[in-house]
Amino acid sequence: MAILKFAPFSTSIHPTFWQELSSLKIDKLQLSDEAVQIKAQYTAGKVILDRQTGASVSLGSQISLDAASLQRSDATQHSANQPSTSAITAQSSSAISARGFLKNFNTVEAFRNADKQAIFDDTLQDIWKRLTSDEEEPEIFLTTFLALTFADLKKFKFYYWFAYPALVTNPPWEIIEDGKDPWKPISSTLDAARCGVLSTWLQQQSAGRGFFLFKISSGTDAQCARISSYAAFFDGVPETERYIGFVDPSGAVQTPGWPLRNLLAYLQARFGVEHAQIICWKDDLAQSSGSLSPDQSRSVVGQVRLPASQSTDGASTAGLEVQGRATRITSKPNNPQEPSGVGWERNVQGKLAPKVADLGPLMDPKKLADQAVDLNLKLMRWRIMPEIKLETIQSTRCLLLGAGTLGCYVARALLGWGVRQITLVDSAKVSFSNPVRQPLFDFEDCLEGGQPKAECAAKRLQRIYPGVEAKGVSLSIPMPGHPVSSNMEEQAKADVERLEKLVDEHHVIYLLMDSRESRWLPTLLGAAKSKLVINAALGFDSYLVMRHGAPPASTDGTGAGKDASSSWHGRLGCYFCNDVVAPSDSLTDRTLDQMCTVTRPGLAAIAGASAVELMVSVLQHDLGVHAPATAGETSKQSVEDAQAIADASTVLGIVPHQLRGFLAQFNTLRVVGQAYDRCTGCSASVVEAYRSIGFEMLLKAFNEDKYLEQLTGLDQMYKEAEELEAAVDWDVEDDEEDGF
Amino acid sequence: MAILKFAPFSTSIHPTFWQELSSLKIDKLQLSDEAVQIKAQYTAGKVILDRQTGASVSLGSQISLDAASLQRSDATQHSANQPSTSAITAQSSSAISARGFLKNFNTVEAFRNADKQAIFDDTLQDIWKRLTSDEEEPEIFLTTFLALTFADLKKFKFYYWFAYPALVTNPPWEIIEDGKDPWKPISSTLDAARCGVLSTWLQQQSAGRGFFLFKISSGTDAQCARISSYAAFFDGVPETERYIGFVDPSGAVQTPGWPLRNLLAYLQARFGVEHAQIICWKDDLAQSSGSLSPDQSRSVVGQVRLPASQSTDGASTAGLEVQGRATRITSKPNNPQEPSGVGWERNVQGKLAPKVADLGPLMDPKKLADQAVDLNLKLMRWRIMPEIKLETIQSTRCLLLGAGTLGCYVARALLGWGVRQITLVDSAKVSFSNPVRQPLFDFEDCLEGGQPKAECAAKRLQRIYPGVEAKGVSLSIPMPGHPVSSNMEEQAKADVERLEKLVDEHHVIYLLMDSRESRWLPTLLGAAKSKLVINAALGFDSYLVMRHGAPPASTDGTGAGKDASSSWHGRLGCYFCNDVVAPSDSLTDRTLDQMCTVTRPGLAAIAGASAVELMVSVLQHDLGVHAPATAGETSKQSVEDAQAIADASTVLGIVPHQLRGFLAQFNTLRVVGQAYDRCTGCSASVVEAYRSIGFEMLLKAFNEDKYLEQLTGLDQMYKEAEELEAAVDWDVEDDEEDGF
Repeated sequence: MAILKFAPFSTSIHPTFWQELSSLKIDKLQLSDEAVQIKAQYTAGKVILDRQTGASVSLGSQISLDAASLQRSDATQHSANQPSTSAITAQSSSAISARGFLKNFNTVEAFRNADKQAIFDDTLQDIWKRLTSDEEEPEIFLTTFLALTFADLKKFKFYYWFAYPALVTNPPWEIIEDGKDPWKPISSTLDAARCGVLSTWLQQQSAGRGFFLFKISSGTDAQCARISSYAAFFDGVPETERYIGFVDPSGAVQTPGWPLRNLLAYLQARFGVEHAQIICWKDDLAQSSGSLSPDQSRSVVGQVRLPASQSTDGASTAGLEVQGRATRITSKPNNPQEPSGVGWERNVQGKLAPKVADLGPLMDPKKLADQAVDLNLKLMRWRIMPEIKLETIQSTRCLLLGAGTLGCYVARALLGWGVRQITLVDSAKVSFSNPVRQPLFDFEDCLEGGQPKAECAAKRLQRIYPGVEAKGVSLSIPMPGHPVSSNMEEQAKADVERLEKLVDEHHVIYLLMDSRESRWLPTLLGAAKSKLVINAALGFDSYLVMRHGAPPASTDGTGAGKDASSSWHGRLGCYFCNDVVAPSDSLTDRTLDQMCTVTRPGLAAIAGASAVELMVSVLQHDLGVHAPATAGETSKQSVEDAQAIADASTVLGIVPHQLRGFLAQFNTLRVVGQAYDRCTGCSASVVEAYRSIGFEMLLKAFNEDKYLEQLTGLDQMYKEAEELEAAVDWDVEDDEEDGF
Repeated sequence: MAILKFAPFSTSIHPTFWQELSSLKIDKLQLSDEAVQIKAQYTAGKVILDRQTGASVSLGSQISLDAASLQRSDATQHSANQPSTSAITAQSSSAISARGFLKNFNTVEAFRNADKQAIFDDTLQDIWKRLTSDEEEPEIFLTTFLALTFADLKKFKFYYWFAYPALVTNPPWEIIEDGKDPWKPISSTLDAARCGVLSTWLQQQSAGRGFFLFKISSGTDAQCARISSYAAFFDGVPETERYIGFVDPSGAVQTPGWPLRNLLAYLQARFGVEHAQIICWKDDLAQSSGSLSPDQSRSVVGQVRLPASQSTDGASTAGLEVQGRATRITSKPNNPQEPSGVGWERNVQGKLAPKVADLGPLMDPKKLADQAVDLNLKLMRWRIMPEIKLETIQSTRCLLLGAGTLGCYVARALLGWGVRQITLVDSAKVSFSNPVRQPLFDFEDCLEGGQPKAECAAKRLQRIYPGVEAKGVSLSIPMPGHPVSSNMEEQAKADVERLEKLVDEHHVIYLLMDSRESRWLPTLLGAAKSKLVINAALGFDSYLVMRHGAPPASTDGTGAGKDASSSWHGRLGCYFCNDVVAPSDSLTDRTLDQMCTVTRPGLAAIAGASAVELMVSVLQHDLGVHAPATAGETSKQSVEDAQAIADASTVLGIVPHQLRGFLAQFNTLRVVGQAYDRCTGCSASVVEAYRSIGFEMLLKAFNEDKYLEQLTGLDQMYKEAEELEAAVDWDVEDDEEDGF
């Protein structure tokens, strides 16, 4: 007799398991370290042929996990990125499922300092309770495992320690040796027919098939049954015809696998079994039943028994009790009610210690970048801002008109928010003074006349983050006050069409140019096409960042703008709503300091980032571009004021209309402005003229000084102002006072 | 007789002239287009030997300008970058100076549209007036020239048009031909001795030597004189012995140079000369007098005369009048008081049009970058902010502790302000989530484990602007709450020494790290070494940007801080002044979202740029780190308040203490906080302990929980607070009211 030894499980974790765990933590678990139920799979033990020696080499007693291990069986995906098909699906007909509990710790200190033994003991206690109840399907509890993990999501390193809690007996089970190898080939016991019965049962069984009872009937007959039916199944069957078996993950012929431990403990505790003939089934379950002959089988049979309890040095070896009856299962030294067990997995060096999987090197760096960028944003949802709509922001397509100081800072802030589609438009080339103020260009981009700014900026965005789709378009935007000569008309028409298409293809249009009149056409297009237009402009030490209001209602009363206009502010204004003259040429005949837009260098960073944060606030609001605006809390606000502010707020805070920042005072004014119904940029008359006439209308705006003023009725306004002035008697009556 | 033809001047401009003009415009002229007096130089006409034909080829009638042309002769440098030595100094002993007027226009339109003829006429009128007065030194006026320029400082293109105004006569002067070549070698007229007299005089003369009178005395004698002494010098001298001469820039033997025009006009108008023997001196003045023999001389002599005035078709050819006497100098058709003239230089194609010098290709791109970056900043001084102290900012050495989101944005803003020395310190490597939020890193910097952040950031700064001196230092900063084990003490000491040295070597220290306790040591060092410390910290959607106050006065009453402490605020506080506990370990056992400092992506750009603008404001103040602070204007301020604000302001605006920005409200609070005399970071007890004990004191701070609290007396404060609490009777008497 020799002490029965078991081959411990060797956990084999596919990298997809860690990716799935990462997603699970980021999206669902977040800060929770509650135990989560998971699955693992094992098959009958595999061997491979050592080509050099010709010997069969056992692959060890593998139990495998992958992404599917963490996914719920009701087809709910934890991670949209992972396919629902397990990487080991091919083996699913051969595989036995094991149930486990995963506890993912939040910090490496928590992982290290956790009372692991307590967790183990709890799990074992749970197994014990289940096995000693009248459980009809005890099999799943026999192979319960424990997974303690810590995921370092920044470095893609995963620390883990698995345990396969197994009950023990005192003394341990023994294997009966008679001759050389205690475990004998199954052919020595079963003929082909009976073998076939067994293998067929195993193949067809779904639930609980990792374990079985087997008895030979008269003749060639044989029967199998589930282990919970031990009493009834073996009633009247002599011991020599009783067989207990399990699908054995151990490929080693002479060493049974780990599931046998709890199987024996179960049979002992539940049915008082102290002697058994064991079938270790080591053949592939998927193999068709008919084709497996006993000679080909690698399965083995052996006899085990539990020696009588011996008290050494007077200490009691009484085992745990079940319903008043003593079992042989060992209890904890300090607690006779709870079982003692073994089962911590050893690491590669054979020590009882955790292992680490370093996935960094395995992963495509671009995927690593994607995950890292995503992570940083999703962390917001763990604690600080669970309701933030990140995907809305990231799927917003942004068009940046201007790739200068503002364009570069806006593009970078968009990247930080995970925006994936950015198009930049500019007609200039990178010049030597650009790189120090426009953070997408380097010195070398200035050489040889300079790279085209839009394309250069787009390429740089790609180099920062390969997952972005960045495009650069070199395009001149036609403007009022800069007449288009007839030989340039075709080019201007093409440019306008290109711009129209770009506006169509994006959700948000940023106006980031360095002149007033160049903003006119995109303002009109944004209004006509109902886009969110964000406008930023710089002075020497002040900036304006604003969103344009929703498109105008039609002059017949239908159309957009209703929600914001229900607020007392009405429809919000655009960049031109405060003007009483049409935009004109401000670019020609400028001195150098006027051309260069001299500004304090820090201003563009502040304005550009604020423009993006403004956009993000608008996108959080259910009404989007129609969101009402607020200038924020005041000390004297009424209940209605507070309600108005709430209406114009989101989880992120207020949704402003205009921000005017002043570096000289280091402060910001929040302004709300109404739309002007004679605005040259966004009023109904202009939008409708554009919609009905198209390019010819734009051409007039570019070429004819007075066209926009006449179209909008501004010229009427001048007249009215003059008439008003004439109507008022400005002469002050000279009373006794001296001349004014 | 043939009409006398003259070789026009050919302007030769050395590139240094344009660089000097650029500097002059940027630094002095700025927007002014007032005429500026400048100089040019010419020599006796050069010829070179055509090696192929053996013939002598005249180099044309060159007049040269370089940087020295724009520099004042009293050694005042217009540009510190240009050497005071003219590039053509070597010729100065051979060269004749010409005086000119430069008018540099502000825009290309102004250059094109200027009334050039009017400017020309004014110059000619000025010449005429001078020549017809009793001017003793008329020579300089004979060669007055005009330079009209436009400098495109962005593209390094210079547009220019020179004119050499010359008076004309009607009819024109004629050259007397007798035989083949009207201009005869000087040897035909003068012997060696007389030639020697002339060449000696020319060589030794300084003022006015471009022109001369020459007469032969009896025998071998000869004499020279200046032209204004014509009447006296030639009194009694027969015409055949009178010679008038000039240093002739024309190398062509048979064509005299341009200066002869005004010389003849002068002699005619002033002295009524209508016939003369002209010596065109074409020999190098620097050649020693004795060595020039007439046969070697290239100088020539010829006879010219002014034909009698002829009225054709009845038009008057009466010339201008001088003191009632008619001259032969032609007046303008529509203005008999003003002279008419010629002299616009033709361009390469022979047209009367401006020329352009494109210096872009000639210049070292790095110099171009330097100039471009400088330009953008100096433009501030043209109109908007003439008093801004740019050089102070640019020579400030900045140490950035932390190369993360804040570090990268601060570094970029410093570049924009022209700061030339930036050192970054960080102990980490670039990771995959960094590039989209930290604008000095690209995707490729993350590969292979990631580049060290500090060095990588410094390299990128260099790639943006080669003129910056950027350095990266990988260094871990020891901190309180993170005990240094004894085997790490040596490393910690070395790290501290390295940090001390870095603090010593810089003017401004930026604290841009991601934890509270890491800021403690640099805060103390900054206070101990009287540096300007700027602190920036990020929350999820709020930021703090502040400057630390001046160092503490000694506990004995001496020392710093007096100016700010004279304001009611007293000494301004540091980052730790509001704490009542010493900094402790906040880094260990953090969950991922705590580790990652989750922030709204636009925040770092706003905070980083604001930190730099705050520094710039402090640097503008005369008191620098001692500047008092203000929270800005309020609606209810008193006269004293207004004065306090003015004391804490510069041309750029207010100098704040702390800025607290809130993205949820898009607003910023300006806060002024006093220093705390029990502060663990900057109070006198801590600073003095550090100064007297050094590293051992720091080690205690790192290792011993209570050390700083005991050192500063915070522990006393706890005691006092407890005693106070005990002393107060907190029990509220229960009156008729119900339980509280």
